[in-house]
Amino acid sequence: MRIIIDAMGGDNAPGEIVAGVLRAARMADMELVLVGRGAEVLEALKEKGVTNLPKGMEIANAEDVVDMHDDPATVIRKRRDSSLVVGLRMLADGKGDAFISAGSTGAVLTAATLIVKRIPGIRRAALAPVLPTAAGKCVLVDCGANAECTPEFLLQFGCMGSFFAQRTLGIEKPRVGLLNIGAEDSKGTDLQRAAYGMLQRLSERGGIHFIGNIEGRDVMLGGADVVVSDGFSGNILLKSIEGTGKFMSDQLKGLFMRNAGTKLAALLCKQGIRDLKRLMDYREVGGTPFLGITKPIVKAHGSSDALAISNAVRQAAEAVSSGLVAAIEENIDLITVPKELEHHA
Amino acid sequence: MRIIIDAMGGDNAPGEIVAGVLRAARMADMELVLVGRGAEVLEALKEKGVTNLPKGMEIANAEDVVDMHDDPATVIRKRRDSSLVVGLRMLADGKGDAFISAGSTGAVLTAATLIVKRIPGIRRAALAPVLPTAAGKCVLVDCGANAECTPEFLLQFGCMGSFFAQRTLGIEKPRVGLLNIGAEDSKGTDLQRAAYGMLQRLSERGGIHFIGNIEGRDVMLGGADVVVSDGFSGNILLKSIEGTGKFMSDQLKGLFMRNAGTKLAALLCKQGIRDLKRLMDYREVGGTPFLGITKPIVKAHGSSDALAISNAVRQAAEAVSSGLVAAIEENIDLITVPKELEHHA
Repeated sequence: MRIIIDAMGGDNAPGEIVAGVLRAARMADMELVLVGRGAEVLEALKEKGVTNLPKGMEIANAEDVVDMHDDPATVIRKRRDSSLVVGLRMLADGKGDAFISAGSTGAVLTAATLIVKRIPGIRRAALAPVLPTAAGKCVLVDCGANAECTPEFLLQFGCMGSFFAQRTLGIEKPRVGLLNIGAEDSKGTDLQRAAYGMLQRLSERGGIHFIGNIEGRDVMLGGADVVVSDGFSGNILLKSIEGTGKFMSDQLKGLFMRNAGTKLAALLCKQGIRDLKRLMDYREVGGTPFLGITKPIVKAHGSSDALAISNAVRQAAEAVSSGLVAAIEENIDLITVPKELEHHA
Repeated sequence: MRIIIDAMGGDNAPGEIVAGVLRAARMADMELVLVGRGAEVLEALKEKGVTNLPKGMEIANAEDVVDMHDDPATVIRKRRDSSLVVGLRMLADGKGDAFISAGSTGAVLTAATLIVKRIPGIRRAALAPVLPTAAGKCVLVDCGANAECTPEFLLQFGCMGSFFAQRTLGIEKPRVGLLNIGAEDSKGTDLQRAAYGMLQRLSERGGIHFIGNIEGRDVMLGGADVVVSDGFSGNILLKSIEGTGKFMSDQLKGLFMRNAGTKLAALLCKQGIRDLKRLMDYREVGGTPFLGITKPIVKAHGSSDALAISNAVRQAAEAVSSGLVAAIEENIDLITVPKELEHHA
């Protein structure tokens, strides 16, 4: 297996990216290709005490870098020599099995769609982060790639999310829920009502296991294994979970700092606090997979450090072995709605 | 001041409603009118050891009760003798200054709109819960009354929310933020882009202090004093905050129950845990005010107990003294968009 990594994307590139890839290289037997400015990558390796490229690790040169101010729509034209575009072209050309970048989400998504292409029949690629829940883990599709959606997009998100949960989270019959503001099928806007019907029909044909609507409250409490949403609401959900987690952690910190007694308490709870921190730490997950592209692509957090990047490499490797892309391709007829039906949905 | 309370609404009616009103009666000098089945209300009073109605407390008889299965749209016709409809008619007729119910949100909202009426010029009433944040408190408008919104609704929510924050949270110049999936004014859907422009123009004219978009992550971290949203996304935000709060509290409970040492730690942190619990406890807030109706109405949580109800009474009293309704009425020209402009927004 050969994984391509954008060495120049993200706030801590190339240092932490290179460190993360070194870490991943020690864990498993993979070919890892760092794409970026050769001299800077070598310098970063040297800083980690590595003077000869370890076995299985390669550098592919790309002199340009996409920055956060680039318009995603023009990146593949104006930044053809960037690490992002060069890396994605290698992936499209079969010179790798998966791609990772911590660069701008919009740029990675647009360039991936244009260069590596969507799976034929898939209307939109989606961002599918994995969240910790009271029941284990759940996957949220979409969390921001598509602010505006049609019911068919949501149908496809549900199906792709279900395959993803089966194949990479090991859930045999994932419970697919539609993010909504109430339990009844009449809740929400026209989008949710139409998507509800489509997901229900797919479920009756055995394509997925649709459990109906899921409210925001029940996501973290483990109410579904796959949460289907338009990118706008999905983003609000994801970000508010992050913000509330941070708020509660800060409160907890304050609570333990009150006096000598509470400071002692913090010592007594050290292991538990560490576990809770780890549970809420995005770096442990690695990154956010794009679903619907012909090859696995993982978007790592912009502020990724070495730990996050090594986990993103693991995640990309799992996506390759899981056969997720093939599963979506084989089932495309189930989740493609003829144009004329879509408008009457 | 005279406050009307639906004695029969909510999961714990009439027992906890009556207990809450008794509690509120002890705190302040108000006239409190319990509307509902007289015999049941008297029985509930007796259970609390009250055989004579305390001074200032009255019972208004209403033999019917709205239940959770009633269609909100037909309640005022099919349940004319219900505590909800009788209570709201009393409010509309000037026999009280504010109204509280823990009954079905949809029924309270629809009946309030039809009986007590919206403030002329206000397109939609909104639910405006107050949330604890790292910066103190913020008000979210709307959290579910209006799943589908126009930009003008959001403009009005922002303005009403700002008056509300000024007058009942005591924030002199509330920072009004538009819930969105990024900071730039181009983010979101057509709805957010159009609302952004309208809020911006109102801000330039001095009507409010608009600070631009606010992402889900920053709501609990105190990024705004007023968060403007359509009811769908607002509900997702509110519920995911609730769910994440519950998830973190459960994790915390587990953490303290691990062993003898952590149990000791829990004792050492007792006060801090109690404070954190209180901070996240919806009962401390009371209920959710409706903004945009001609008289103050507070929707208490369906599972409200006596503490929640007594706080809802306090909240309703504050809404009356604050002059919020008059403030909205006086500024209605600022926030009414002529029909022809609305469509070009």
